[in-house]
Amino acid sequence: MIPADDAASALSAADIDGGTFRLRHATPADLPAVVRLLADDALGAGRETTQDMKPYENAFAAIDADPAHLLIIGELVPHGEAAGAVVATFQLSFLPGISRKGAWRSQLEGVRVDASLRSQGLGKLMVGWAIAESRRRGCNLMQLTTHQSRTAAHRFYEQLGFEASHVGMKLTL
Amino acid sequence: MIPADDAASALSAADIDGGTFRLRHATPADLPAVVRLLADDALGAGRETTQDMKPYENAFAAIDADPAHLLIIGELVPHGEAAGAVVATFQLSFLPGISRKGAWRSQLEGVRVDASLRSQGLGKLMVGWAIAESRRRGCNLMQLTTHQSRTAAHRFYEQLGFEASHVGMKLTL
Repeated sequence: MIPADDAASALSAADIDGGTFRLRHATPADLPAVVRLLADDALGAGRETTQDMKPYENAFAAIDADPAHLLIIGELVPHGEAAGAVVATFQLSFLPGISRKGAWRSQLEGVRVDASLRSQGLGKLMVGWAIAESRRRGCNLMQLTTHQSRTAAHRFYEQLGFEASHVGMKLTL
Repeated sequence: MIPADDAASALSAADIDGGTFRLRHATPADLPAVVRLLADDALGAGRETTQDMKPYENAFAAIDADPAHLLIIGELVPHGEAAGAVVATFQLSFLPGISRKGAWRSQLEGVRVDASLRSQGLGKLMVGWAIAESRRRGCNLMQLTTHQSRTAAHRFYEQLGFEASHVGMKLTL
């Protein structure tokens, strides 16, 4: 559980057109906006629905109760205001493992930026924070999977130093 | 922490040449054998060392302390004996997430079978148990990444129903 004062404080911030882009821990109030970001996507559109928020609320409770999982949002705060709309999100998890000399690894999931705010460096700011936080927590490796069809995402991550070394395999249960 | 009686009991078993192949939770005593399995591998050989076991012991303690992570070993128990050599291993983790209607997903890591015992269905037995356990815990999705060079592994997982839908990207920190 993130204390209220931590949840409200900015993890990272940058001035962009229209105000300040600020990363912070998600709260339950952010959840509808997070789901809208996940749904506003070629693949997510068929997978998400805001009709029934209960499954998302349960998932948020599980994430929020475990310090190994962080749900982060980015908000666009207009100049002179205290808060703004949720325009970006990602999840970061910290996983122990025996491989690679018992390395901790971090894992990125559900990275999304509002379509109207792309190509302004917000994704780079988010992943940059995630990399720094992973190092701070002693991780030796960071990993993610992106769908084969997301070629722009592959280029984005390769520019940040990620290597497309693996095949990501999924099985629906 | 797995209670001692659970750790000793078989999760799954099958008769094979030479005895019974039995899955159970790993204990600290299994760790050298697990590391040898990880090191006996084209990619693992350069990544693992049994010279200093302390980092592996720390990782095992972290896995063992968190019910979201399981380190499983397979042992080959000769007929008429109570225990046998560790000949296989994998890790299974259970991860909450907002995506896919707040789906829990399970993740396989470090799947290894002793080179002398391949092509006897041990991998299929292990992943079959992992799939059943993931369903039992309410996961809607199971995922793993395998190195691009492991083409036999890709075929193995595709035969079990996994789809090579994603690119797995890694960044060494």
